[in-house]
Amino acid sequence: MYQKTLLAVFLFLSVTSQAQMNDDSLFIRRLADTILTSGTAYENLRQLTKDIGHRLAGSPQMYASEKWGAAALEKAGSNKVWMQDCMVPHWVRGKKEQVFLIAGNKRQPMEALSLGNSVGTNNKALEAPLILVNSFEELDSLKEMVKGKIVFYNYKFNPRFIRTFHSYGDAVKYRVDGASRAARYGALAVIIRSVSHAADNHPHTGTLRYQDSFPKIPALAIGLKDADRLASILDRGNARLTIRSEAKMLPDTIGHNVIGELRGSEFPDEFITVGGHLDSWDTGEGAHDDGAGCVQSIEVLRALKAVGYTPRRTIRVVLFANEENGLRGGTAYAGEAKNNKEKHYFALESDAGGFTPRGFGFAGAPAQLEKLRSWIPLLLPYGVYKIENGGGGADIGPLHRELNTPMAGLEPDTQRYFDYHHAPSDVFEAVNKRELELGALNMAALIYLIDKYGL
Amino acid sequence: MYQKTLLAVFLFLSVTSQAQMNDDSLFIRRLADTILTSGTAYENLRQLTKDIGHRLAGSPQMYASEKWGAAALEKAGSNKVWMQDCMVPHWVRGKKEQVFLIAGNKRQPMEALSLGNSVGTNNKALEAPLILVNSFEELDSLKEMVKGKIVFYNYKFNPRFIRTFHSYGDAVKYRVDGASRAARYGALAVIIRSVSHAADNHPHTGTLRYQDSFPKIPALAIGLKDADRLASILDRGNARLTIRSEAKMLPDTIGHNVIGELRGSEFPDEFITVGGHLDSWDTGEGAHDDGAGCVQSIEVLRALKAVGYTPRRTIRVVLFANEENGLRGGTAYAGEAKNNKEKHYFALESDAGGFTPRGFGFAGAPAQLEKLRSWIPLLLPYGVYKIENGGGGADIGPLHRELNTPMAGLEPDTQRYFDYHHAPSDVFEAVNKRELELGALNMAALIYLIDKYGL
Repeated sequence: MYQKTLLAVFLFLSVTSQAQMNDDSLFIRRLADTILTSGTAYENLRQLTKDIGHRLAGSPQMYASEKWGAAALEKAGSNKVWMQDCMVPHWVRGKKEQVFLIAGNKRQPMEALSLGNSVGTNNKALEAPLILVNSFEELDSLKEMVKGKIVFYNYKFNPRFIRTFHSYGDAVKYRVDGASRAARYGALAVIIRSVSHAADNHPHTGTLRYQDSFPKIPALAIGLKDADRLASILDRGNARLTIRSEAKMLPDTIGHNVIGELRGSEFPDEFITVGGHLDSWDTGEGAHDDGAGCVQSIEVLRALKAVGYTPRRTIRVVLFANEENGLRGGTAYAGEAKNNKEKHYFALESDAGGFTPRGFGFAGAPAQLEKLRSWIPLLLPYGVYKIENGGGGADIGPLHRELNTPMAGLEPDTQRYFDYHHAPSDVFEAVNKRELELGALNMAALIYLIDKYGL
Repeated sequence: MYQKTLLAVFLFLSVTSQAQMNDDSLFIRRLADTILTSGTAYENLRQLTKDIGHRLAGSPQMYASEKWGAAALEKAGSNKVWMQDCMVPHWVRGKKEQVFLIAGNKRQPMEALSLGNSVGTNNKALEAPLILVNSFEELDSLKEMVKGKIVFYNYKFNPRFIRTFHSYGDAVKYRVDGASRAARYGALAVIIRSVSHAADNHPHTGTLRYQDSFPKIPALAIGLKDADRLASILDRGNARLTIRSEAKMLPDTIGHNVIGELRGSEFPDEFITVGGHLDSWDTGEGAHDDGAGCVQSIEVLRALKAVGYTPRRTIRVVLFANEENGLRGGTAYAGEAKNNKEKHYFALESDAGGFTPRGFGFAGAPAQLEKLRSWIPLLLPYGVYKIENGGGGADIGPLHRELNTPMAGLEPDTQRYFDYHHAPSDVFEAVNKRELELGALNMAALIYLIDKYGL
C-alpha cells in the first residue's frame, strides 16, 4: 500500500511536473515568437550604435545614450523610468595619437590607441629607444635596463584556451599593470600588444591602473600585426618610438544609471535586476561591449510585457554607467540598494557580447544552482545547455557582494568576442540579429522562471 | 558474494573506462593544441577563397581549386593523393544580369542573380508586367492570370524556427520548383525573394530544377530589401520588369573529386571518409559554403598525422566535386566504391558553414548513435554537447544510401549561415579563424574515436 501511495504520488508529481514543463515550454515559445518576429533589440542597437556611437563616461554621447535609454525603456513598456545619479571619471583621449616607429633611417606611422585612464605626453612628442619585454618576469630581470626607454610588452593571447575569456584573464595584466611596473624601473612609456587574437591590425584599448608609488607614464596599445613586426625588428636590432598623446583625466562628472521597472504584483518590493552597461570605450561603436547587453535587457522587459506576463516581483532593467573605467554605476546601484534596505532577489547581466548563447554562469547557493539547472531542458531548444558555477557580471558584482544577491551572467559563444573588444571594429555590423535575439530570449526565459518559481 | 563480485567488476570497469577517458581526453587535447596553435585550416581557406575565389563546376576556378586541393592534401601528410573523374554540369551565368524595375515613369536598376541552372533571355531583354505571388497556393488560385507575366515569389524566411535550416527547408521550394510551377500557367519568367534572413540586400542564388513538361523560363533572385520594396509597390499598383540574362547550360565537362588518404594499419581496406565540397556558386568566394568544410577535412588529416596517430582504418579526405548543381562528385564516389566493393565504415561531412560547433547529426543504427553519444563528455570542452539522430551531408548521402555507410554531419551554430549562403557576402572575412578551427577539432576527435573504438 505504501509503495502504491508512493507510486501514485510519484506519478502525480511527474504529471504535474510534466504539465508544468509544458506550460513553461509554451510560454517560452511565446517569448521566442515575439522576440524573433517583432523584437526591438536589433533596431535599438542600431540606434544606439549608429545614431549615438561610442559613449565613454563623461562624453557628450554618454548623455545622449542616457536620454536614448530612458526613452527606449519607456517605449518597451516600463511602469516607471528614472535616472540614478553617480559621479563618473572623465578621461579624454584628445586628438588622435601620433606614433612613429624609427628603425634604421625609416620613420613609419603606427596605428595606436592610448589605454583608458592613461596620461598623455604633455603636448610634446616623447621619443625614446624601444625595449622588447615578453613578460613581467623578463621585466624584473631587466630591471634598470628599461630606464629611459619605452617598454614594448609583447605578451601573446594564448590560443590554447577554448574559452577566450581565459586567454584574456591571462594576458590583460600587461594592459592593467604594465605601465606602473615599467615605471618602477624608470621606463618613460609603454606600448602593449593588444589583448586580442584578431586576424586584423586594430589596436584594442581598455583600462589601466596606475600605482600611486610610481610615476604615471603614457601607455598605448598597437595591433597584432604591428606587434609581430615590431618584435621582429627588435629581435634583429634597435628601434625608437615617438609618441604624441593628449590623453588626460579630467575631474569627475555626473553620470547616470538608467532604470526601467516592471512592477511586481505579489512582491513589488523584491527586485530582479537585469542589465548591461551603457558606456563603452571611445572607439568603434560599443556594439558587442555592451550595446548588446543593454538592448537585450530592454528586450527582456518588452517581451515579458508583450506576452502579457505580470511579474510577481519587480523586474528592473538597469543600463549601468561607467563599467569600463570605474564601475561607478554598479557601485552606486548597490550602494543605494543597501542604504534603502532594498531586497534584491536576483540579478542577471549580459556583458560578453551579442553572440549565440550557450549558457549562463551563476554565483549563489549550490541548491539554487541545481534549481536553475533543472530548467535547462526548457532552454535547450534555444541553444542554452549549461548553467555553470561561477559567473555574473561586473556591474551586478557589487550587488552580489554587498547584499549577497544571487547573480548570473549570460554566456554567449566566446570565439569572436576578443576580435572586437575595445577596438574600432566593435560596430553594429559585427552583431548578428538572430544571435542577439537568442541571447535576449534565453535571458527573458530565465527571468520568467526565477520570478515564477523562485530561487 | 555475487554482489561483491558485481561491485568489483563495476569498479574495474569504471576505473578502466575512466582511465580510457583520460587517455582520450589527453589525446584530444593534443589535437586541440596542434589545431589551435599551428593549424592550417585558416590559411588554407585564405588561399582557396582569395587566391582562387568562387569555383562553380566547369569553371576555370574549379580546375584551379582541384590542383590546389591535391597540393594541400599532399602537404597535410597524405600517404596518397589522387583525383577521381566525374562528369559535371557546366552552367554559366554569362555577363552580369541586367534587371530594371519600371514603376510609374521610373526605371530603376535592381541587383539580381540568375538562379543556378536557369536559362537566360536569348540575347534580348524580356519585359513583362510583374505579378506578386506569396505562395504556391496563391499561384494555383491565380492560374492563367500569370500568363505573359513575370511571377515575383515573395515567400518569407520564417524567423520562428530556431534552426535556420528549418526555415530554409520551408522556403527553398520557391527557388527549386518556382520556375516550372509558374511556367505551367504561362509565366514568362520568375524572380524570387532570396532564401535568406540577411539584414543586407545581397541576392542569394542556388539551384533550380526544371520540369521537362513545362517551358524553361528564366529565374532570378533579388535581395530582401528589394523584395520588400517590390512587394510594397505591387500592393499599391502595377509594375513591369525587364530582364537581360545570358545564363545557359553548356555540355557536361570533366571534373574531379580530390582525395587524400592516410593509410590504416590494421584495416587498410576499411574506409573512413571525411569531406566537404570543393565547388561553390559563382558569387562571393564560397568561404562558408563549403571552403570551410574542405579545409576542416584537410585539417583533420593534418592534425591526426601531426600528433603521430596511426589510424587503424584508412582515413580518406574527399573534396567533392559539384555539390551545388548536380551532386555528381558524391554520386561518382559512391558509385566507384560500390563497383570496387569497398568497405566504407563511416563518413563525415562538414557543409553547414565554418561556425562555432554545437554538435553532430548522425544517420545509422540506434546502438551506434548511443555509442557516439557516450563520447560527448570528451567533446564537451570543445563546444559539442549534442549528437542528434538524423544528419550527414549531401555528398556522403549516396554512400549512405548505396552502401549503408553510417554517416554524420558537423552541426555548427546555424544563426549566421543564411546571411552568406550562395551570396556575394560569402567571403573569407565572414569566417572566424577560431570557430573554423573548433569545427575541425571536433571532427578530428570524432574520427579518432570512431577509428579507435569502432562504431
